Amino acid sequence: MRIDGRDTRTIWLGEDGTAVVVIDQRALPHRFALRTLRSDAEAAEAIADMTVRGAPLIGATGAYGLALAMATDPGDGNLAAAYGRLLVARPTAVNLRWALDRMRAKLAARQPADRRRAAYAEAAAIADEDVATCAAIGEHGAGLIRAAWERAGRSRPVNVLTHCNAGWLATVDWGTALAPIYKAHRAGVPVHVWVDETRPRNQGASLTAYELLAEGVPHTVVVDNVGGHLMQHGKVDLCIVGTDRTTRTGDVCNKVGTYLKALAAQDNGVPFYVALPSSTVDWRISDGVRQIPIEERAADEVALMTGETAAGAIETVRIVPRGSPVANFAFDVTPARLVTGLVTERGICPASEAGLTALFPREEADRAA
Amino acid sequence: MRIDGRDTRTIWLGEDGTAVVVIDQRALPHRFALRTLRSDAEAAEAIADMTVRGAPLIGATGAYGLALAMATDPGDGNLAAAYGRLLVARPTAVNLRWALDRMRAKLAARQPADRRRAAYAEAAAIADEDVATCAAIGEHGAGLIRAAWERAGRSRPVNVLTHCNAGWLATVDWGTALAPIYKAHRAGVPVHVWVDETRPRNQGASLTAYELLAEGVPHTVVVDNVGGHLMQHGKVDLCIVGTDRTTRTGDVCNKVGTYLKALAAQDNGVPFYVALPSSTVDWRISDGVRQIPIEERAADEVALMTGETAAGAIETVRIVPRGSPVANFAFDVTPARLVTGLVTERGICPASEAGLTALFPREEADRAA
Repeated sequence: MRIDGRDTRTIWLGEDGTAVVVIDQRALPHRFALRTLRSDAEAAEAIADMTVRGAPLIGATGAYGLALAMATDPGDGNLAAAYGRLLVARPTAVNLRWALDRMRAKLAARQPADRRRAAYAEAAAIADEDVATCAAIGEHGAGLIRAAWERAGRSRPVNVLTHCNAGWLATVDWGTALAPIYKAHRAGVPVHVWVDETRPRNQGASLTAYELLAEGVPHTVVVDNVGGHLMQHGKVDLCIVGTDRTTRTGDVCNKVGTYLKALAAQDNGVPFYVALPSSTVDWRISDGVRQIPIEERAADEVALMTGETAAGAIETVRIVPRGSPVANFAFDVTPARLVTGLVTERGICPASEAGLTALFPREEADRAA
Repeated sequence: MRIDGRDTRTIWLGEDGTAVVVIDQRALPHRFALRTLRSDAEAAEAIADMTVRGAPLIGATGAYGLALAMATDPGDGNLAAAYGRLLVARPTAVNLRWALDRMRAKLAARQPADRRRAAYAEAAAIADEDVATCAAIGEHGAGLIRAAWERAGRSRPVNVLTHCNAGWLATVDWGTALAPIYKAHRAGVPVHVWVDETRPRNQGASLTAYELLAEGVPHTVVVDNVGGHLMQHGKVDLCIVGTDRTTRTGDVCNKVGTYLKALAAQDNGVPFYVALPSSTVDWRISDGVRQIPIEERAADEVALMTGETAAGAIETVRIVPRGSPVANFAFDVTPARLVTGLVTERGICPASEAGLTALFPREEADRAA
């Protein structure tokens, strides 16, 4: 998507054909900076220190990390070592393991002399496939926004509420929950986005607002507490959020607070959609609340807040009294009964096992196998 | 309640018998500082600059402000002028007008020579009545916490979730929503409080956490997004919040985000109580969502965050990109259907017109008159 009017991805091959360039997302929204990765160790570091974040982007960075390793030493020993170095960068990132396994399978089957070329080709394929998946989610979801516009007699912009950042910065391009918004906006459907701040890490107020601002999509940042009030007063036409993990029955595990917005949507008759690449579906589990363990993260994410001072410096301040304990549950589970539909790369389906398997029969067969 | 182990109110008469001392709440939770008010102008300033906040405390400060005026010049002209100066300090504070009207009526009926003594007596009465009201709310509400403890076979602490700060710092002592917690804690009922951060002004993470820490009540600060997850997992026994305004039908207008917690409570079978002095009931209105206008406050409350740096300085940082619009709705309305009960100074009643009028028949008669 656009940064300063130029179409940009979150990761791309450098001009020398070897190095890999990523956006340093730690500095956003206050600074736009690039970081050049010249080795698999640098790629692992960029994953570990959250220069890059978002499951699809982490996967693509891992893939390019193996390509960087093959550019230096395409031998079996280095392939295994680089795989290991990259995998531990974010141990719980399912997409990272998936991308590394795919790369390793492709490369192990080749002679070392072929591996450099094959690795860059496969990493590019992983990145391009992610872009195609997100673009397809965007096309399907844009239909929902257009339909809401038609229902309003094209008389006013469509108001969409989103939580956290499921935008292009979390993927290679387009994003998941934001892809429908970008597709609708570029197709001339007027849309306005309510951006949940998304405490404690503020990915909404920082990354989603930054993306929408750069793309020129009208939006308003609100604190996470406000969505219910907006829906009570008819100020939200639909909600679209992402998901980190989806049960085969359509329960969605997304950034904490998503469940509260889904409850408010139900209470006010507002459609609540979840956008996802089918790779986030965990076909093994059926009860999200009981079966998905919720990560507890560091207290300092809640107790400290980082931003830009009036003087332009980046500073961190404490906002909870020293001595008060803090708990930091990072995700929650929204039961399928609160989800109007799942927006996937193959279309929109009910949030149910029947809905998902109608669109993804192959995965269903794999599961039964 | 206790500060550094000493029982403290939010406002009291200075040792000279004339000046009035208040806690400077702007510096909390990072600094505990007192401010001495020596004139009605200083009292008005303390109200306007939010040295004191919370409807009951603002009322008491206004009352003492008129007493300070009478200490200087008890004449009719100064009584009228001081009344005007104090009233404009927070024009929308209903309690401030109520306290000033009560003081003026008392003082106007007296000779100037009697007014100083009468003014201090009446201000003290207003403060003491507020303490008695809050203490009674606390006693009634503590019964709910004790009952939850008994239901759990006294096997573990009772988990209470609260939103914003309806604590003693907002009143003269005890508070409203926190009063039941303090009463239960002092009575030996083990209680643990989940403290909603309460963006954007963070009164939970700052003031509620500070109060509980000072009083020695076990508590954990969470971001506003977390309550639904906690309730899904049985980690909340009951919710208790305050209210700024209550319809005669039991709808409650409280700090924004309260409605989302009430929805989660309903979805998980968690009792949701609202603590209030009956003075917050607006007998004229019956539909909170339609009839209560919601204040929109300054964008900077959302876009900027103030806290303490590692070096110990108080600093403000920007957390929303420059250029991204911000909306700041300060309150929301929780419909009575989501409220398990109203905890008042006269006892607990259903959140309904029948419930309220059973406890407060006099006000009901006033309304009918």
